[in-house]
Amino acid sequence: MVRILSFVGTRPEIIKSLAFHRAAKNIPELEILFLHTGQNFGQTMADCFWEGLEIPLTESNPNFKHETPGAIAGSLLDYMTSKIDEYKPDVVISNTDTHSAFYAAMAAANRKVPVAHFEGGIRCEVRTNPEEINRRLADHLSDWIFPIADGDVQFLINEGISKDKIFNLGDITLDALNIVLKEHDIVPQSGDYDLLTTHRQENTNDPKRLARILKGVADAGHKTVFPVHPRTRQMLDSGLPAEALKQATNIEILPPQGYVDMVRLAAGCRKVITDSGGLRREAYMLGKPVISLVWFVWFKEMLKLGFKKSVGADSEKITDAILNFNPQGERPPLFGDGNAAERILRKIIEKVSDEA
Amino acid sequence: MVRILSFVGTRPEIIKSLAFHRAAKNIPELEILFLHTGQNFGQTMADCFWEGLEIPLTESNPNFKHETPGAIAGSLLDYMTSKIDEYKPDVVISNTDTHSAFYAAMAAANRKVPVAHFEGGIRCEVRTNPEEINRRLADHLSDWIFPIADGDVQFLINEGISKDKIFNLGDITLDALNIVLKEHDIVPQSGDYDLLTTHRQENTNDPKRLARILKGVADAGHKTVFPVHPRTRQMLDSGLPAEALKQATNIEILPPQGYVDMVRLAAGCRKVITDSGGLRREAYMLGKPVISLVWFVWFKEMLKLGFKKSVGADSEKITDAILNFNPQGERPPLFGDGNAAERILRKIIEKVSDEA
Repeated sequence: MVRILSFVGTRPEIIKSLAFHRAAKNIPELEILFLHTGQNFGQTMADCFWEGLEIPLTESNPNFKHETPGAIAGSLLDYMTSKIDEYKPDVVISNTDTHSAFYAAMAAANRKVPVAHFEGGIRCEVRTNPEEINRRLADHLSDWIFPIADGDVQFLINEGISKDKIFNLGDITLDALNIVLKEHDIVPQSGDYDLLTTHRQENTNDPKRLARILKGVADAGHKTVFPVHPRTRQMLDSGLPAEALKQATNIEILPPQGYVDMVRLAAGCRKVITDSGGLRREAYMLGKPVISLVWFVWFKEMLKLGFKKSVGADSEKITDAILNFNPQGERPPLFGDGNAAERILRKIIEKVSDEA
Repeated sequence: MVRILSFVGTRPEIIKSLAFHRAAKNIPELEILFLHTGQNFGQTMADCFWEGLEIPLTESNPNFKHETPGAIAGSLLDYMTSKIDEYKPDVVISNTDTHSAFYAAMAAANRKVPVAHFEGGIRCEVRTNPEEINRRLADHLSDWIFPIADGDVQFLINEGISKDKIFNLGDITLDALNIVLKEHDIVPQSGDYDLLTTHRQENTNDPKRLARILKGVADAGHKTVFPVHPRTRQMLDSGLPAEALKQATNIEILPPQGYVDMVRLAAGCRKVITDSGGLRREAYMLGKPVISLVWFVWFKEMLKLGFKKSVGADSEKITDAILNFNPQGERPPLFGDGNAAERILRKIIEKVSDEA
């Protein structure tokens, strides 16, 4: 029996858990435990993401603290270390690029437990991007890395990480998306609205950037739905962007959405305007043009194929892309075939057995 | 004026501060502030290291907590972040491979302040070695890296770090050693005792390893002085290694020594038996054979030249090396010329000015 401990802190990690939990049902020699780190903006946010997903959560950290960088680091490391000591896993999963992902890798390395990192190798080559920091450090702490695209494999090799630690077995996000489409009878079709999301510090912590984004969307005049992340909400409730929002009468504000509802919104929209790394991939998988609100680039492949346009927080470029960006042509399966989770879990079991 | 903030937490960082403080006197356009992070095993340990060095300390962190990994991370990150916000430095120094060094780089990267990392690039390629974790992660968070040996430059390049971020300008440890030799009229000569130190978790947290080390030194029967790190002290005071120590009547236990006294002991001894990365280099600089108590290798060059023997915690090998390891031959200056600190500070000023 191989015991895997997966620390889950934020939306992309919850989505991965859905795929892993379903895949694990096919693997009797595996026990996978999901522990919520308490990250996210308040318990409501996390609850909303778990809703309707039927993933058994072993427990949640009641003591997550987010007030300062030290509080985040301290509360995550202590929770994770104590749980590694308690459950004695064979492997700890580090999911993606969040604080929870980095500190899970750190806690496991401290305790000399092997680390498997999902979505490793993605790089935008901006040193102080918070996700870049977490992802790169987690990669360099890991025993096995599971990137989701060929370009990311190359980034890892360029950083001296041995090829025999790297396995590109597909993107778990596609597994999860397929599960939700199927189980909730959602059929992708082009609707009469665009979908807008923004949650990255680069955009949400700068009221001028957020105001420029809102102006760009407002000027296009197209009906737009905007599920608002709590961090974005805080910024909207203060000063400048609130003014910009008032003028954006074509934008419909929604509370944070659970994963199933987000898939429904993405499947039914015309275009996706976002700074999210997960949603942009889901949009590509669903055949939606992606307008990216960050100026740096993840997934050069999507850009090369013409399905994504990076506009940053430039109002005019955003308006122009909403009105005129209509990618056509081939849309090859960049992110695997939707069966990544089971392949990855079986690979982990194989590696653990090799080392035993 | 360029303001550099140097967080200093442990012995090797204090030694570097000595060299930087003296070198900075020659550079009027520079302000360098030394802040003590409070790391080390209790305030006494830190006090003892600062003793006699005349380095002005801007302040000390009164709230360092060492009880758990989270307490260490949290108390360091919060202190450092608040001091970066307060002093608004142009550059933050990350010294070597300690928790203080890693979290200094992390705090600065979070605040988008450039990071200069000293002693970067050293690798033993053991993923869960605590120093390897801190050093590798600090390297990947840094803007400019100052390795101390050519082999380490290559490790950095192999990890995809751009050559124009890497400057091998010599080892600051040699600067500091020369300062102390000169100012305290210490002349290296081969005495009638060996010098033993051990402080690494790999050795101090495992009573069996520590007992084997003591047995190896006892069996050689040679007079040995043993300044004891507080972590080693804790282990000696409990069970098995205490027994081994009783039989080692040739070993003289000393309390932790200040830097000047350590240099005096190293300069006057016959051989150095250690798991310290700093002391082994100082020993080489002083012409002393080094018997290494770790099985993994830093500084392959010293090994290749035959001035170091890696014996780990193997009693017989330790005894044999004490009795029979007598390296001869050329001892080229592997670690620079003793003027590294000023060159490094001037390089940092140049890089800051380039980016302004």
